[in-house]
Amino acid sequence: MRNLYQVKQDICAIGDRLYKRGYAAGNDGNISFRISENEVVCTPTMISKGFMTPDDLCIVDMNGNQLAGKRKATSEIRLHLTIMKERPEVKSVVHCHPPFATAFGMAREPIPPCALPEIEIHLGEVPIAKYAIPGGQEFADTVLQFVHKTKVVVLANHGTVSWGENPEQAYWYTEMLDAYCHMLILAKTIGNVGYFTKEEEEELLALKKKWGIDDPRFAMKDCDMCSNDVFRDSWKEAGLAHRGFNPPSFKEEKADDQEALIAEITKRVVEALQR
Amino acid sequence: MRNLYQVKQDICAIGDRLYKRGYAAGNDGNISFRISENEVVCTPTMISKGFMTPDDLCIVDMNGNQLAGKRKATSEIRLHLTIMKERPEVKSVVHCHPPFATAFGMAREPIPPCALPEIEIHLGEVPIAKYAIPGGQEFADTVLQFVHKTKVVVLANHGTVSWGENPEQAYWYTEMLDAYCHMLILAKTIGNVGYFTKEEEEELLALKKKWGIDDPRFAMKDCDMCSNDVFRDSWKEAGLAHRGFNPPSFKEEKADDQEALIAEITKRVVEALQR
Amino acid sequence: MRNLYQVKQDICAIGDRLYKRGYAAGNDGNISFRISENEVVCTPTMISKGFMTPDDLCIVDMNGNQLAGKRKATSEIRLHLTIMKERPEVKSVVHCHPPFATAFGMAREPIPPCALPEIEIHLGEVPIAKYAIPGGQEFADTVLQFVHKTKVVVLANHGTVSWGENPEQAYWYTEMLDAYCHMLILAKTIGNVGYFTKEEEEELLALKKKWGIDDPRFAMKDCDMCSNDVFRDSWKEAGLAHRGFNPPSFKEEKADDQEALIAEITKRVVEALQR
Amino acid sequence: MRNLYQVKQDICAIGDRLYKRGYAAGNDGNISFRISENEVVCTPTMISKGFMTPDDLCIVDMNGNQLAGKRKATSEIRLHLTIMKERPEVKSVVHCHPPFATAFGMAREPIPPCALPEIEIHLGEVPIAKYAIPGGQEFADTVLQFVHKTKVVVLANHGTVSWGENPEQAYWYTEMLDAYCHMLILAKTIGNVGYFTKEEEEELLALKKKWGIDDPRFAMKDCDMCSNDVFRDSWKEAGLAHRGFNPPSFKEEKADDQEALIAEITKRVVEALQR
Repeated sequence: MRNLYQVKQDICAIGDRLYKRGYAAGNDGNISFRISENEVVCTPTMISKGFMTPDDLCIVDMNGNQLAGKRKATSEIRLHLTIMKERPEVKSVVHCHPPFATAFGMAREPIPPCALPEIEIHLGEVPIAKYAIPGGQEFADTVLQFVHKTKVVVLANHGTVSWGENPEQAYWYTEMLDAYCHMLILAKTIGNVGYFTKEEEEELLALKKKWGIDDPRFAMKDCDMCSNDVFRDSWKEAGLAHRGFNPPSFKEEKADDQEALIAEITKRVVEALQR
Repeated sequence: MRNLYQVKQDICAIGDRLYKRGYAAGNDGNISFRISENEVVCTPTMISKGFMTPDDLCIVDMNGNQLAGKRKATSEIRLHLTIMKERPEVKSVVHCHPPFATAFGMAREPIPPCALPEIEIHLGEVPIAKYAIPGGQEFADTVLQFVHKTKVVVLANHGTVSWGENPEQAYWYTEMLDAYCHMLILAKTIGNVGYFTKEEEEELLALKKKWGIDDPRFAMKDCDMCSNDVFRDSWKEAGLAHRGFNPPSFKEEKADDQEALIAEITKRVVEALQR
Repeated sequence: MRNLYQVKQDICAIGDRLYKRGYAAGNDGNISFRISENEVVCTPTMISKGFMTPDDLCIVDMNGNQLAGKRKATSEIRLHLTIMKERPEVKSVVHCHPPFATAFGMAREPIPPCALPEIEIHLGEVPIAKYAIPGGQEFADTVLQFVHKTKVVVLANHGTVSWGENPEQAYWYTEMLDAYCHMLILAKTIGNVGYFTKEEEEELLALKKKWGIDDPRFAMKDCDMCSNDVFRDSWKEAGLAHRGFNPPSFKEEKADDQEALIAEITKRVVEALQR
Repeated sequence: MRNLYQVKQDICAIGDRLYKRGYAAGNDGNISFRISENEVVCTPTMISKGFMTPDDLCIVDMNGNQLAGKRKATSEIRLHLTIMKERPEVKSVVHCHPPFATAFGMAREPIPPCALPEIEIHLGEVPIAKYAIPGGQEFADTVLQFVHKTKVVVLANHGTVSWGENPEQAYWYTEMLDAYCHMLILAKTIGNVGYFTKEEEEELLALKKKWGIDDPRFAMKDCDMCSNDVFRDSWKEAGLAHRGFNPPSFKEEKADDQEALIAEITKRVVEALQR
């Protein structure tokens, strides 16, 4: 069991990682750690996460009222508290702006699953919550529909939020997601993403089940495992659509671009000539 | 209140961040801090910003005459002094070459707003000042028309300049801008940028007003909030045009590329055949 | 000869490099060092490779049974042991997820050789092993067919594995490969990759022979040195194909894209009109 | 005047920067410092440049014979000595593989000038030397034709080499070049590069002259300042051509791609129909 000072040191250490990885420009990002039924240590507003000392941190209650700290607590604490209330076993939340994951949220492109086993096992499908103006309860509530089905959410046109038993664990999911999003963009630049086959993905999900890690796909009927089915109901209000990436089952329906262009030109020329 | 030695340490600490983030290659970049009515501490010329000690720094007066320091003050001090004279509450200026923001200035592409709330609230629209040969007063004056309307300016084919109450604050705006520009380029590589709707942007600007942060859009008539209207008058002389990014109101006017190609080929073929 | 504590320090130092280079997000990556006939020091599961101390490391026997360590040994130790058994002179194995090399494995694009001399001399052609679910012996065996012909393997949709006499040497091959893959992607973004001519590559391979570094191309008949011939037999089961890069001998067979488009449209229009 | 130990420390410090910036993967890169008429301190072969101590360094004479050091001197020392012999005022040479500059050498794309003032003033046009197998005198001689006209050369399909009065100065030119190449690639990804006008470039070159920095363009007749004229004679044997970037004077001669496609299709269809 870590004492209060150690908890604060842990938060500062994760702040340092956020900063060094470029996940928190300016004063972006915030980190929290619930230390008792009604006390949460959190980062203050208006500070670079890479240069904090334990003395800079605040304590708030579960309603967001500040209990301690010479600096003002982050205005995004409501997002953290909403997640902690909904899932009491969650003790720590990390919110930041990792560039590659945030770019998916800015492009409103669902993050394609079925391309790296570690992501399937440890993260599974990652939802993109609809945009809402930050700071208020409406914003915090955008993650509620996802909070039991994932450990990390991309916030449309904003950033990411992930959670766990302590700041390091909460941070890990963000780091894994951002590395994955980087590789997806690189694979697209090289040519395409080679996704798992149905059999390969089934094998991975069976292993995940065996290891006792839950996945919403286990409970779904007629789930198209690799085509972002889990959170598809949320796409419309978040403005999401596959534009840059096409996970497996989309491929069959999609005509080849060049072929479609040739066919369309041919058709138009002939139509025009026959008028 | 920081003493002179501490002020110098603060400047060196920001130099270190500039270097580590890759914002200042070779001897690029310069930092200043106004310590009295007529004294400004600044970085010297011909030194890597990542390896300075307080002893390397210079003091100049508000006309740029060197008052102290064993090294020669930066030749770009005029840019700093011009901003400080125009806005006496500004105490510190940071000029450097962050790669992603500078790339927008090199592509002469207006930085599209309306994609991240933090940028709307803390930066707003960011202008790109026309190119002028560095070092002289003409160069310094290129930022004058923007200096009351923003905290950071991109300098066409050059870099960025930002300002604040102290070096860290001045630096923050550069760091935020560069992270934003990185994400914009990534979102374009993925597919497109999903911009805010009119309603979402109005809500953000209302919040900004409530928090007492000024935005030139508050005072403008018929401002198309998301299509870079604020600094549009400056585009012609800076050679700016939307080529890679299309913020919202541009979208409606823009025909689909593929469709236009097909239509044009069809038209030409038919015309040629009918000759 | 390093003692056990020093060996553990060496592994932690390489873990630090893996983390700082962004090759191991979350708890990704693992490192091993064989210290005797039947003892291998290795990294534990569920730890960030950037923050390990010697005390965190484990010892396993050559069958993967844990002999020492308060933490559980990595579940991917089988991959390490399989390589060490097959090549007893190999003392250390590094497995991780470097972004650029992993992206080639995710795009299932063979890494084109013949573009940098250091890569030809020190690495030669780098194979991409077919995907298999991680952790088990089947996964470990995917590298067996390559293990005598290379020092580094890309694992399709997974990461990389490299080996050597000690952790630093094993790490070097990964670092070199990832830097090379980065440059290939950049050269493609600029325009194309300028590959070596037949004569230039023959000269490099002659030098490699003279320096006593083996290359599978030495022993091959009718080897097309620069078109990934060495591991071509493995492409089908790994789903590999040149999609983004075309090393030399592919160039001749490949029609120019624009020319092919024009020819095809012309052909279709004429066919349609003549129907 | 630095003593021998300090000189060695300086070289190690620059090795550390090379490594941290990702300019030297594995054992890539080498650094030298001439300390007397016939003594040059240099880095050894087979060592990571990021983890050297003064004790690891070697001393060679101007013919490359090793005078001191427990490790073997770099095999690329001939490149360093050739430059030092040709320009005796040069005391230090840095050779490495910075990713963005090396990518231009791998794409055999001339680096377009006229886009950043610092580059025009401090570097000017940067040549790409033809590829030659590394290590020998023929390789070293590939830079001879450029060595009086620049401070940094890109080596086709290899890396870069730069020089100066001490290791830090030599390193600066590499760092500046790589940052510039990064921004060029980013500007291309955004849309295009906005180059200087004839007048703007003339003004920069006049300033450069005034500051006493030489530029080969000063002495050239009919030099097209911004279209890589300075080293154009070397393009053929190096396989160079503008494929991805078009500095100013190229623009006028280049037809619009889309327009050319439409015209060509129209022509072909009509020709085919008239056969």
